[in-house]
Amino acid sequence: MIKSIKLTLGIVLTGSIGLLAFSAKHLHIKPKTETPSSPNVVIIFMDDMGYGDPVCYGGGPYKTPNIDALANQGMRLTNFYAAQAVCSASRSALLTGCYPTRIGISGALDHNSKIALNPNEETIAELLKARGYATGMVGKWHLGNHVPFLPLQHGFDEYLGLPYSNDMWPVYYDGTPYTDTTNYRSTYPPLPLIEGNNTIRTLKTLEDQSTLTKLYTERAVAFINKNKRKPFFLYLAHSMVHVPIAASNAFKGKSGAGLFGDVMEEVDWSVGEVVKAIQANHIQDNTIVIFTSDNGPWLIFGNHAGNTGGLREGKGTAWDGGLKVPAIISWPGKIKAGTVSSRLLTTMDILPTLVDLCQAKMPANKIDGLDFSKLILGDENYIARDEFAYYYDRNNLKAIRKGQWKLVFPATSQTYGPPATIGRDGFPGKYGTDTVKLALYNLYRDPGEDRDLKEQYPEVVQQLSAIADKYRQALGDGLTKTVGTEVRPAAVVQ
Amino acid sequence: MIKSIKLTLGIVLTGSIGLLAFSAKHLHIKPKTETPSSPNVVIIFMDDMGYGDPVCYGGGPYKTPNIDALANQGMRLTNFYAAQAVCSASRSALLTGCYPTRIGISGALDHNSKIALNPNEETIAELLKARGYATGMVGKWHLGNHVPFLPLQHGFDEYLGLPYSNDMWPVYYDGTPYTDTTNYRSTYPPLPLIEGNNTIRTLKTLEDQSTLTKLYTERAVAFINKNKRKPFFLYLAHSMVHVPIAASNAFKGKSGAGLFGDVMEEVDWSVGEVVKAIQANHIQDNTIVIFTSDNGPWLIFGNHAGNTGGLREGKGTAWDGGLKVPAIISWPGKIKAGTVSSRLLTTMDILPTLVDLCQAKMPANKIDGLDFSKLILGDENYIARDEFAYYYDRNNLKAIRKGQWKLVFPATSQTYGPPATIGRDGFPGKYGTDTVKLALYNLYRDPGEDRDLKEQYPEVVQQLSAIADKYRQALGDGLTKTVGTEVRPAAVVQ
Repeated sequence: MIKSIKLTLGIVLTGSIGLLAFSAKHLHIKPKTETPSSPNVVIIFMDDMGYGDPVCYGGGPYKTPNIDALANQGMRLTNFYAAQAVCSASRSALLTGCYPTRIGISGALDHNSKIALNPNEETIAELLKARGYATGMVGKWHLGNHVPFLPLQHGFDEYLGLPYSNDMWPVYYDGTPYTDTTNYRSTYPPLPLIEGNNTIRTLKTLEDQSTLTKLYTERAVAFINKNKRKPFFLYLAHSMVHVPIAASNAFKGKSGAGLFGDVMEEVDWSVGEVVKAIQANHIQDNTIVIFTSDNGPWLIFGNHAGNTGGLREGKGTAWDGGLKVPAIISWPGKIKAGTVSSRLLTTMDILPTLVDLCQAKMPANKIDGLDFSKLILGDENYIARDEFAYYYDRNNLKAIRKGQWKLVFPATSQTYGPPATIGRDGFPGKYGTDTVKLALYNLYRDPGEDRDLKEQYPEVVQQLSAIADKYRQALGDGLTKTVGTEVRPAAVVQ
Repeated sequence: MIKSIKLTLGIVLTGSIGLLAFSAKHLHIKPKTETPSSPNVVIIFMDDMGYGDPVCYGGGPYKTPNIDALANQGMRLTNFYAAQAVCSASRSALLTGCYPTRIGISGALDHNSKIALNPNEETIAELLKARGYATGMVGKWHLGNHVPFLPLQHGFDEYLGLPYSNDMWPVYYDGTPYTDTTNYRSTYPPLPLIEGNNTIRTLKTLEDQSTLTKLYTERAVAFINKNKRKPFFLYLAHSMVHVPIAASNAFKGKSGAGLFGDVMEEVDWSVGEVVKAIQANHIQDNTIVIFTSDNGPWLIFGNHAGNTGGLREGKGTAWDGGLKVPAIISWPGKIKAGTVSSRLLTTMDILPTLVDLCQAKMPANKIDGLDFSKLILGDENYIARDEFAYYYDRNNLKAIRKGQWKLVFPATSQTYGPPATIGRDGFPGKYGTDTVKLALYNLYRDPGEDRDLKEQYPEVVQQLSAIADKYRQALGDGLTKTVGTEVRPAAVVQ
């Protein structure tokens, strides 16, 4: 609707000014509500933050006033999914709009990984850079730690952060150096902090970890201040609330809700600083802020992990606790303040939505994301997505979703339930193993995936099975040994 | 804070007008932010609506714009509990501020019940009536269906509604008359609609049920319009979304989310009508609106039941899915708009909070509710309640809560999980039986009660066990055959 008015206006302008005045009056065009063609974009991507962690999603007893305020001035999504419940896979989906399995990414890459995000894939940063945006990244990358695959080679003008997870270091959970040389963990080098393409220092202690949120935030604010006069894209990927969790002295012991609460209050402060910088530069009406998470909480860490709000299982599974994440989109004046939507959406859908809103070009290769700009701009009935394929492990199709229904396929999976033991105070527990049977869940009526309805709805089982076959043929399935016809390879690290 | 300023002002007034002017200037008193001493109160109480049902609590794909708007203009609570996960018990707690077991109420009363809410207990209606309020009730009562125990005898000036649950009638789930005379259900008389103390007609069909939401709403709006010039208390207790669910023609088939969605959209419309009536009378700044539910969803009804948002189990259990309910409190200008609080609170706490806000008198008998007015009026760190006793069945202490912790005691319980079967399209499934073991859950980190931590935190098990003993001694416990020393009897129906 807004777009068609804009086109009409453009045609009139090439004709006659008198006609323009006439048209504007009769069409009730209000130029100030026109959607800007190059809004700034800020994506704040949390690590391992669960669906239930922000207070506006039921978390507490710590406070998250800045995240809650972002929701109050924008749209809060309650059926938004990470593309896969593990770090590198999820991040590849966010930046490329693809199922990770389509672009050959799985798991969590580290210093020894032989794959990385293929430079042939086009990231949000590359698409917006081609549109004239200044592009900056701060925080956790996790899509290849060698120089050819770092953010500067994937469309970002500048970068400061960690190349992978903050627990990929030779330090034990209590902060002491790791001495067990028979354990893989001892092969990690000290955690490198990278600026541009260079390691500028290494992190060796929990004290070092406690500086990350502040460091990232200051750099993010500096990027906004520096680029306030041109369109910009900022990707702020926090290392928190991933273990080892750490809060700076300003927040340690302050929440009254343990270290996890302190860390939540510090990342909430960070959100507030970013919003304040946007407001201080008077660009809030031209800036889209997206807040979400890479996957659900790493529950094996007990009180050092987030919470799912009651969803089943967590990170590293194909249950909803692993993939359903908090997601808030704010764009003052464009997105109606304080709205909530239960529409099914994923991180893959952010790329095509931003391409639309920023009038950038779509990637040349096929992607999986779907444009939901109509939903956030006011058409609350707009359905961008009705299906979702739950992949995990290397390439296993563990479940399929259509509308309200989720069909879970039989597999052996890790579980946080019995016989798992749950850790405490930074030390992990031990996973259990679960033999999952075919099961059908209605996710709107049973978001906790507790009550299998396959006997009551055999027709739905049949329908979803057919949809799963479609994904198997395109993207493959390790469980049924199906090779996908549309899969593209990841880059190979030499 | 506000109160202390008010007291200072009162003292000054008895002194000198000149001094008042001086004080007001120097204290920066703004009279228009003064809390009115007799705010109107509207309690909208839903039946069997789960924690996850309103869209602002994650529900969908239907829409609840009016409930969401109420949250946007007030405070949304995310750790608010019904006092017991069954109808009559829960309602007795709301109106008296007591654990149901303290006042001898349990279960769901029907036409044959031999107990009723004791007239010696003081209800919110009686306390506010004594303060000069007009008091009206519309909807489901469920605290005694004989005349001596109806709302008019418990403090309400007027009443229109059903004396008990809308499924307590001799009609089968598909709407046909019940013919199996060996079943208890066949003993129900037709469902009586009561005005004042008289049955004015009976409900016999699903079509009749579909008129209830509109009927209640119109009467609620009429009560507000009639009493707009005096302080009033309106208790609107919907029969929906309790089975048999039914929507009027204006809503049937409209949500695109099945009959349950249609019913949700109709009760949401009702909330909107009530708020509109308040606004149309320009009394919104002087009216407290509380929206909550009597207990969690009756999950055995499958797609005709609400959802818990992923919490464990539902109505009729002592798991959080049975007791944690949506709760919104709005008071424009007094409660900060769009706030969310994760503080532990219960329906019992509404009575003492309203007594404070409306400057009424507390009941003469001991109650269990705790005043949380400071929390909603701006002190977000205020902790009114830190403990909660989960009772169910006649008088069984099934679990105890302190702060973040919940200790569940061993018992045989009904379950919606295997081997239960879940119903469909209005027909119930069949409960399973569950042998519950001692278990400790951290409800802030694990709101779904999935990961027992009793081995990791033995000191917490010990602490909560001692607190449970305190409740057993005062209120009794059927599981340990403890008779409570503080229990008062229900009224006996002659």
